[in-house]
Amino acid sequence: MWNAADERPSVCALLMPQLMKFTRLPHLAGTEQNLRYAEQIRDEWLEFGLDSVEMVPYDVLLSYPNKSQPNYISIVDQLGNEVFNSSLAEPVPEGYEDTSNIVPPYSAFSAKGQPEGDLVYVNYGRTEDFFQLEREMGINVTEKIVIVRYGKIFRGNKVKNAMLAGAKGIIMFSDPADYWAAGVQPYPAGWNLPGGGAQRGNVLNLNGAGDPLTPGYPAKDYTYRFSLEDGVGLPKIPVHPIGFHDAIHLLKNMGGQIPPNNWKGALNVSYRIGPGFTDDFKSQKVRMNINTDNKVTRIYNVIGRIRGALEPDRYVILGGHRDAWVFGGIDPMSGAAVVHETVRSAGRLLSKGWRPRRTIVFASWDAEEFGLLGSTEWAEDNAKLLQERAVAYINADSAIEGMYTLRVDCTPSLHTLVYDLTKQITSPEEGEEGVSLYESWHKRDNWTNDRDAPRISKLGSGSDFEAYFIRLGIAAGRARYTKNKKTERYSSYPVYHSVYETFEIVEKFYDPTFKRLQAVAQVRGGLIFLLADSQLLPLDADQYADSLRKYAHSITQLAQTHPEEMKVYEVSFDSLFSAVENFTVAARDFHERLQTLNRVRVMNDQLMYLERAFIDPLGLPGRPFYRHVIFAPSSHNKYAGMSFPGIYDALFDIEHSADPQKAWEEVKRQISIAAFTVNAAAMTLTPPA
Amino acid sequence: MWNAADERPSVCALLMPQLMKFTRLPHLAGTEQNLRYAEQIRDEWLEFGLDSVEMVPYDVLLSYPNKSQPNYISIVDQLGNEVFNSSLAEPVPEGYEDTSNIVPPYSAFSAKGQPEGDLVYVNYGRTEDFFQLEREMGINVTEKIVIVRYGKIFRGNKVKNAMLAGAKGIIMFSDPADYWAAGVQPYPAGWNLPGGGAQRGNVLNLNGAGDPLTPGYPAKDYTYRFSLEDGVGLPKIPVHPIGFHDAIHLLKNMGGQIPPNNWKGALNVSYRIGPGFTDDFKSQKVRMNINTDNKVTRIYNVIGRIRGALEPDRYVILGGHRDAWVFGGIDPMSGAAVVHETVRSAGRLLSKGWRPRRTIVFASWDAEEFGLLGSTEWAEDNAKLLQERAVAYINADSAIEGMYTLRVDCTPSLHTLVYDLTKQITSPEEGEEGVSLYESWHKRDNWTNDRDAPRISKLGSGSDFEAYFIRLGIAAGRARYTKNKKTERYSSYPVYHSVYETFEIVEKFYDPTFKRLQAVAQVRGGLIFLLADSQLLPLDADQYADSLRKYAHSITQLAQTHPEEMKVYEVSFDSLFSAVENFTVAARDFHERLQTLNRVRVMNDQLMYLERAFIDPLGLPGRPFYRHVIFAPSSHNKYAGMSFPGIYDALFDIEHSADPQKAWEEVKRQISIAAFTVNAAAMTLTPPA
Repeated sequence: MWNAADERPSVCALLMPQLMKFTRLPHLAGTEQNLRYAEQIRDEWLEFGLDSVEMVPYDVLLSYPNKSQPNYISIVDQLGNEVFNSSLAEPVPEGYEDTSNIVPPYSAFSAKGQPEGDLVYVNYGRTEDFFQLEREMGINVTEKIVIVRYGKIFRGNKVKNAMLAGAKGIIMFSDPADYWAAGVQPYPAGWNLPGGGAQRGNVLNLNGAGDPLTPGYPAKDYTYRFSLEDGVGLPKIPVHPIGFHDAIHLLKNMGGQIPPNNWKGALNVSYRIGPGFTDDFKSQKVRMNINTDNKVTRIYNVIGRIRGALEPDRYVILGGHRDAWVFGGIDPMSGAAVVHETVRSAGRLLSKGWRPRRTIVFASWDAEEFGLLGSTEWAEDNAKLLQERAVAYINADSAIEGMYTLRVDCTPSLHTLVYDLTKQITSPEEGEEGVSLYESWHKRDNWTNDRDAPRISKLGSGSDFEAYFIRLGIAAGRARYTKNKKTERYSSYPVYHSVYETFEIVEKFYDPTFKRLQAVAQVRGGLIFLLADSQLLPLDADQYADSLRKYAHSITQLAQTHPEEMKVYEVSFDSLFSAVENFTVAARDFHERLQTLNRVRVMNDQLMYLERAFIDPLGLPGRPFYRHVIFAPSSHNKYAGMSFPGIYDALFDIEHSADPQKAWEEVKRQISIAAFTVNAAAMTLTPPA
Repeated sequence: MWNAADERPSVCALLMPQLMKFTRLPHLAGTEQNLRYAEQIRDEWLEFGLDSVEMVPYDVLLSYPNKSQPNYISIVDQLGNEVFNSSLAEPVPEGYEDTSNIVPPYSAFSAKGQPEGDLVYVNYGRTEDFFQLEREMGINVTEKIVIVRYGKIFRGNKVKNAMLAGAKGIIMFSDPADYWAAGVQPYPAGWNLPGGGAQRGNVLNLNGAGDPLTPGYPAKDYTYRFSLEDGVGLPKIPVHPIGFHDAIHLLKNMGGQIPPNNWKGALNVSYRIGPGFTDDFKSQKVRMNINTDNKVTRIYNVIGRIRGALEPDRYVILGGHRDAWVFGGIDPMSGAAVVHETVRSAGRLLSKGWRPRRTIVFASWDAEEFGLLGSTEWAEDNAKLLQERAVAYINADSAIEGMYTLRVDCTPSLHTLVYDLTKQITSPEEGEEGVSLYESWHKRDNWTNDRDAPRISKLGSGSDFEAYFIRLGIAAGRARYTKNKKTERYSSYPVYHSVYETFEIVEKFYDPTFKRLQAVAQVRGGLIFLLADSQLLPLDADQYADSLRKYAHSITQLAQTHPEEMKVYEVSFDSLFSAVENFTVAARDFHERLQTLNRVRVMNDQLMYLERAFIDPLGLPGRPFYRHVIFAPSSHNKYAGMSFPGIYDALFDIEHSADPQKAWEEVKRQISIAAFTVNAAAMTLTPPA
């Protein structure tokens, strides 16, 4: 049996040099440098001793700024003269002055265009912000350019909301209220976002489709490609991101109403709504100059394998992306370094004669930043194998986003394994020698309301586990080091997707001893090794039952905010609770039978296929690639994981539907689908014949 | 190892009394009597010694004539008087005069209504018939009632075509050209259809959805049901079937053009097209009086199980329906008797200490006649288990439809097993003592063009294997005794779905010695026993490769009837042929590895999941429940099995599309999907790690 404590010294030894090695140069997806790193990873994985390593290419739609026509935002006077232009690039951090190929901040997949008009400020650009703007403030953004601050929801949803509201362009800025930690200096003196920094990112609404031109199928040479017009999730309006130094120029002269306080950020401006500028500047307009090009481009996943000794047809997967917006000091290379070290450690074990029971697959994904493309195309390419054979997928994106404690998001069947494992790992925090990671984590983030244990969250989306978990129904999880969510209210981490994500920011601020990355490596690696090597799969159906009950209660509570309609339309959650009860009994019986087990393979298959049982091949309404009935990203924010997403979305629509009867019928239909799916999952746990 | 020859005496001993027992009374789906038979089957299966037998109910939409307002067709004069009425029932066959609950001929799920208007005759009501009518004959059927003859395509497609063409009602009649065998007397003197007989049948367009109100989910008590308006495949116009005695009255005075010869049947009328009657009868109209009711009704499947000794989580399924339009002498009880005898034989073996390696499931389905409802609901209920665990599904509908030779339709991976098995079985034909069923069959129906072996056809639809094969991708097959297709050109068999399908028609004409049913029992039972008991699954991937190549050639030939467009739109089948080549190599290598096999389970799983690899979760365009990329019913006739149905349908649409570029783009997209799927299937056969 693999033991986490035994592996610690070797797993982490080279984390620092590995991270440094792969963050020297910008390596955006589709560029020469990202291919070079892929080749280097392939070569080193082979040296480490994997049984096989291959480069797997796909030709997917990417998006780059036009080098000869840069993107920027202008304020133009009544003669059309540009009286202000936003910066064309971020100030380059010290030590990287000679680096070429730093892509300037841009919104990947933005439409091209030069829209010109009045600005309207719409807070975070959420559904509720546009509602408030239109219904309470009486402002229509048709033919306007909206400006919103980053944060709270996925940027692609802000763009979708702006399009639906009729805007002809959207500008997104990083407000210090959302991207500054209190008392911290901007980089390089500290780890806050400088005023000249801005957040790159794609603005697609893919809903899990992968490459926008080949939804459902891998983007190979012979694959049929839709035209750009028919592509999935491509925005139809120009989009551009700016830093707060530039944002001040756009915001400071805005006219119109003063918004409620929760619309105000931390800049020294009044955050007026508009439309347009105050009387003094009324003749000035804002113009976006966007020339970003979509381009079908070759990307490369690196796939390494260790053949299982006893169950070669059962796969445990550790995957994380390699492509970065610039250097990727945090995102993703802090995670890629962890994968690299895990491979090295596995290779060392292999050389000592060890071989895991099951096959382990290691993946270095490409083009995650452009919509999880590398991982999704590979999932599409291998869907039939994965569906029959994959035991679990562990994701390895950024290993650190804060300096406080561990963060784990995973499927409920992995809860017990995560707890058991973290009890074997030592806390990386100073002064906690001899304290387990579990205790350290528990102390800092207790799951108070539900149970006395460290908090584990639901998986949302926004990283490469999506196709594996939400489309294919493979048990999945992720782990990283995080901030203190209660006291640090900024969004993700301040320099997220900026040029300031360097090796140095990790080495100087986030993890000078590399012990936090080491702890994350031990969690990710430990999960993989235990899933691959335990005779009995370490998946816990009882935990799934507990979680289902919790989720059922919480979705019911949400519905019960409409008690009268629930009576009128005869909406009942009884069938769902009855299904959860069936599942609970089946799970309990299953684990009791495990005590006297004589058919390991049969019962392991039942455990492996448990997650698959939650997949509905019909998908969620309008989202054919989101097929997990228990978990999906919110329709309104892909970062947020929803339980019972079908019911949740139907309830959300209650507020906005012109036909409440129809909307409530959909709630009832979704309850029925959820109850059926939970009952069917219970059946998969009963004795097979 | 089970041996077909050993089992012969016992398998067949009681076929005759079993058939008699279950054909004494009408047992339409949803009726008391069909429940009684279900209970009897459950009780006897338990007595025979199965490990478990359960009744599994669903509440599905059925359709019955209104007893107080019978359905009929009238000719009305200008005053509205009914000058002719079609018969309200078929003349009851001798010996059944006192039988109650014989449902009169009707079209299940017909819309209600009393449409009145001129008749238009549209041959078989195929797409091409309506095309010819509209384009060549210049006749528009809007607001007309169409009359078509039964045959060639599924009746539901005739109704869909009539609706699409704008007709307000449709009458279907059995023409002797299509329902008389030469030189044969009508029943009871022979086995031809009497002039007063008519063909019952459902007129849905379900495309595999099962219960129209619960598509995709089992019709349980808590399942959400769509309104009738939103139900799947329900026709919006009245539909009614008549015999040829009644048809003569409607056809004899019709006016309008004389049609081409291939529109003419064998009645002594001119088969004029209409619209309406000749001058002498111009003021007469046709009125349909249809009062059929849709009704959610409880149905019952009977599910019996033998637990597998070594692989209890691998299922081999023998299923066939029990519900009949009236007595079900041929359809389905000739098949149900075979299942019953197979269960009895299995029970006898169990009592001698035998137990199969894998689990065997026996099913008596309900409501097949109403759209494969019982089998589809159970497939939906158990989809997640079946997907992971089902090895094969063998269908047991009517065991006999002719007196000539064996007919087998199955997935290519079963070809070898079928050949091997039939070589062990003796021919049932007189004068062929000592001749194998294989030789007898080979002599009568050689697969000349392709290979020197008995012909095996593709699976279409029209019986209960559909959800298992085409939705879930489980290897499937069916076998029955059939007519000589070259000389006997009538559709199915003459008394099909009439009251004349009695026990006596089998006993007197089709199989007086019951040796043909015995041979079918040995084929169906033999397949089940060999699939359940062989250590290595008897599935042949090489045969799949051969078939794929044949199908690829034939779909390419179809496309090449448009050589110029193929150039203009750059349509190439290269990727498909390359994928077929990859599959062929993978299959050959797989079977070579089987020679030196050391991992039976791993390789058996590869074989089991091979069929599953052809499933595309996205389904065929507009047909989400038809998900098999290699096989599906034609969009234009569900009885016909199409290879590469996606490409086939796209090519069919070429002829009818207003936008040829778009139509050819769809052809290219479908080629790409087919190539991807065949490549993915090849991957499932390669070494697992």
